[in-house]
Amino acid sequence: MHFSVLIFASVATMTAFALDNGLMRTPPMGWLAWERFRCDIDCTNDPKNCISENLFIDMADRLYEDGWKELGYVYVNIDDCWSSMDRDKDGRLQADPKRFPGGINKLARYLHDRGLKLGIYGDMGTHTCGGYPGTTVDKIEIDAQTFADWEVDMFKFDGCYSNAVEQELGYPLMSKALNATGRPIGYSCSWPAYQGGLPPKVNYTQLGQICNLWRNYGDIQDSWSSVLSIADWFFENQDVLAPAAGPGRWNDPDMLVIGDFGLSMDQSRSQMALWAIMAAPLFMSNDLRTISSGARSILQNKMIISINQDPLGIQGRRILKEKSGIEVFWRPLSNNASALVFFSRRTDMPYRYETSLSKLNYTTGSYKIDVLKDSTEFVVSVNPTGVVMWYVSAPGKLQYHPFIRGDKLRRHKYDAKQNNFF
Amino acid sequence: MHFSVLIFASVATMTAFALDNGLMRTPPMGWLAWERFRCDIDCTNDPKNCISENLFIDMADRLYEDGWKELGYVYVNIDDCWSSMDRDKDGRLQADPKRFPGGINKLARYLHDRGLKLGIYGDMGTHTCGGYPGTTVDKIEIDAQTFADWEVDMFKFDGCYSNAVEQELGYPLMSKALNATGRPIGYSCSWPAYQGGLPPKVNYTQLGQICNLWRNYGDIQDSWSSVLSIADWFFENQDVLAPAAGPGRWNDPDMLVIGDFGLSMDQSRSQMALWAIMAAPLFMSNDLRTISSGARSILQNKMIISINQDPLGIQGRRILKEKSGIEVFWRPLSNNASALVFFSRRTDMPYRYETSLSKLNYTTGSYKIDVLKDSTEFVVSVNPTGVVMWYVSAPGKLQYHPFIRGDKLRRHKYDAKQNNFF
Repeated sequence: MHFSVLIFASVATMTAFALDNGLMRTPPMGWLAWERFRCDIDCTNDPKNCISENLFIDMADRLYEDGWKELGYVYVNIDDCWSSMDRDKDGRLQADPKRFPGGINKLARYLHDRGLKLGIYGDMGTHTCGGYPGTTVDKIEIDAQTFADWEVDMFKFDGCYSNAVEQELGYPLMSKALNATGRPIGYSCSWPAYQGGLPPKVNYTQLGQICNLWRNYGDIQDSWSSVLSIADWFFENQDVLAPAAGPGRWNDPDMLVIGDFGLSMDQSRSQMALWAIMAAPLFMSNDLRTISSGARSILQNKMIISINQDPLGIQGRRILKEKSGIEVFWRPLSNNASALVFFSRRTDMPYRYETSLSKLNYTTGSYKIDVLKDSTEFVVSVNPTGVVMWYVSAPGKLQYHPFIRGDKLRRHKYDAKQNNFF
Repeated sequence: MHFSVLIFASVATMTAFALDNGLMRTPPMGWLAWERFRCDIDCTNDPKNCISENLFIDMADRLYEDGWKELGYVYVNIDDCWSSMDRDKDGRLQADPKRFPGGINKLARYLHDRGLKLGIYGDMGTHTCGGYPGTTVDKIEIDAQTFADWEVDMFKFDGCYSNAVEQELGYPLMSKALNATGRPIGYSCSWPAYQGGLPPKVNYTQLGQICNLWRNYGDIQDSWSSVLSIADWFFENQDVLAPAAGPGRWNDPDMLVIGDFGLSMDQSRSQMALWAIMAAPLFMSNDLRTISSGARSILQNKMIISINQDPLGIQGRRILKEKSGIEVFWRPLSNNASALVFFSRRTDMPYRYETSLSKLNYTTGSYKIDVLKDSTEFVVSVNPTGVVMWYVSAPGKLQYHPFIRGDKLRRHKYDAKQNNFF
C-alpha cells in the first residue's frame, strides 16, 4: 500500500528513464561500512570494529545524536560479511547469529525508530566477494522477499562470482523482485563496474530504468591517489556518464573516505566538492565515534550538501584543464544558479589562478551575473590538492563558499561579499 | 679564531671521516623555504609569501616565540631565488635589493640576536636551478668569503647547470673555501643527488670528509607518494647509505612537509618517525604562521626529536617487510636503547600486527628487555599509512611512544606502561 502511494506521487516528476520505485530523487546520503571496516569479523579481539549489530547501532546513534540525520545522512548500510555461511532450512539468507544476535529486522526497527534507514548487501553470483552466500538467479525472489520482510530500505547488489550473461539476467530480475515485494527498497547495482563502466558493454538507459544508483568503477581506497583516479575516470568519461544521471538514477563513484587515515584536510575538501559536482551519493565510510572536528565540518557543510542535493539532479562536468594543473568544474543548479569548483593537481604551493568567467567559457547565458561581469579578471588561490568552491546564484549575486581560500580579488577591485556558510 | 677553537674541541670525538669543521654532530634542525615557498618572487601580489627578508623574519619570529628554538629548530634557511640577477661590481653575489632591502648580513644579525642561525643557498654551476647567478669554479672563493662576511651559518650548494667533472672539482673546493674563511659554516652538498646517489658514481667516504650533509635523491613534493618514494629509496639502499652517516655527516632525504597541504595526520606522523629513524636533518618547509595544532604537536614531539638527535648518530634501518604491508624499522640509540617503528603501507583499515621481538629478529643482545621477553607475542594496531613508534630503553623498560595506537597488548597480558611524552 505504502509503496503504491509513493509510485503515484512520483509519477508526475520522474523522467521517462527512472526506476519506477519513486526513491532517491536526490542522491542518497548515509553511512556504509565497507571501506572503513571491511570484512573484520574478529569480534573476540576487535569487538569495537568488527562487523556486528553493535557497530551499526553505534553508527546509528552517532547519526542520530550528532546532527548527521538532519543534514540528510539517513542510510546506515551493511556491506559484505554480515551473513551466516549457510542459508536457513527454508533457503533464506540469515545474519551471522553471533555477530547479529538480534537479527536484521530488529536492527532495522532500531533505525526506523530514529528516523534512519537500513541498507543491506548481497551479491549476484555464487558467493559474495568475501566468500559468503551469493544470490544466484534462482535465489533472487526469495532474497528480495527476505530483505522486504526484514524492513530493509536499500539493497546493494555486488557482482563477484558471476559472468556477464548471468549479470544481464540477474540485475533486472532483482529490480523486478524488489518492486514486487511492495516495499520501497533503493537499489544499488554494481553491474557496470564489472563490465568496465562504458558502452557498449554497459547500457546506461537500461540501468536508469532498473537501478537507483550504480557503481561504475573500482572500489575506493583510503588514499588520495585512489580518490584522484576515481575522479579522473568519471570526468574523463563525463560525456557518457553525466546524461545517465538524474533524479532516481545516479552514478556512484563510491564512498567518502573523509575522516579516515589517508586524506589531508585539503584533499578531504576536494573529495567533498567533486562528489557534490558529480551529484554523487554521499555514503561516508568512517568511524563516526572518533571522527575529527575538521573532517566533521567538511562532511556537515550545509552549502556543499545543498549543492549535492540540488533537486534538478544534473551531474556536473569538468569544463577546463589548465597546463598549470588547475581544473575547473561546473554544475548547473536549480533557480538558475550553479556551482563552480577550482581544483589544483599541484603538489607545490597555493596557486594564484587568474581567470574570468569568459575565459572559463562560462558565459552568463541563463546565469545572469551582475556583480561579476564576464570579462572581470579575478584571482583564486587554490591549495595543492585542494579546491575553491563557488556557489553562483542568479540573477546576480556571487556567493563565496567557505572552501574559498586566498585573497578577496583585491587586484581587480571586485568587491563580492564573502558569505560564511558554516 | 673561533673556528680553530671549535676544531680543537671536536677532534677528540669525531670519526676519521667527518668534515673537520666540528659542526652538526647531530642532524641539523630548522626551517627551509623551498618546498613551501618555492621561487615566489611576486611581492606585489603575494607580499606575505614571496621570497623576501620579511618571510624569513616572520619565520624567525615564529621559531623564537612559539617554542621551536628550544627544541632545536634553530636554522632559518634561504633557498633559491634570493639573489639579484647580477653580481656587484666586485663580482660578489648580492641579495635582490627590493626583496632584501636590509641585506643578508642584517638578516643574519636579526637571527643571531635570537639565538637562531642563517642558512643560504648557491649553485655549483653557471646558474641556480631557478636561473639566478651560479657559482662557477672561479667564483667559489669569493662566494665563500661573501657568505662568511655576511655571518652566514650554513650553505646549501645545489648542482644545476654543471656536469660531473665540474662537480667533482667544485664541491671539494667549496668545502676548503668555506673552511678557509675561518667561520664555521655547515655545508650541505646536493652533489650525490645529481649523480644518482649510489656508488661508484658517488663516493660516500669522500662526502663525509667534505660535507656535513648531502642530498642523495630527488626533491620532496607536498604529497604522500613523494614522501613514500623517498623513504623507499633510502631504505632500499640502506646498506650503502647507513654506514655513510654519523656525527657531522648526514644523509639528507629532504625537507619535512608536515603542516602543508598534502599529508594526512597519520602520514605526517610517519614522515616524522621515519626521518627520526634515518637520523635525517629536520628542516621543516611549511608556514609556521598558520600551522595547525595537530602538525605542530607532531613536529614538536620531544621524544621523536630526542631519537632523531641521538648522540651516537647511527642511521637506522628497515629490518622487516611483511607481505601484509607492515614494515618494521629499527635504530640503535645511546645507553643501549633503541627505537622501533611499525609502519603500514595499507590503504584499508588499522591492521592488527601480531609479532614478538624474536620474530622481528630483534634479539635482546645488548638490549636487555626484562618486561617484554623475546618470545612474548604482542599486537600493535597500525593505521593505514601510519606508524606505531616504540622507544625501548635498556636494561629492561619498554616505553610507549604517543604515536602508539591501538590496544594495550591485552591479549597476552603484557602489561607495559604507557608513558605519554607529549
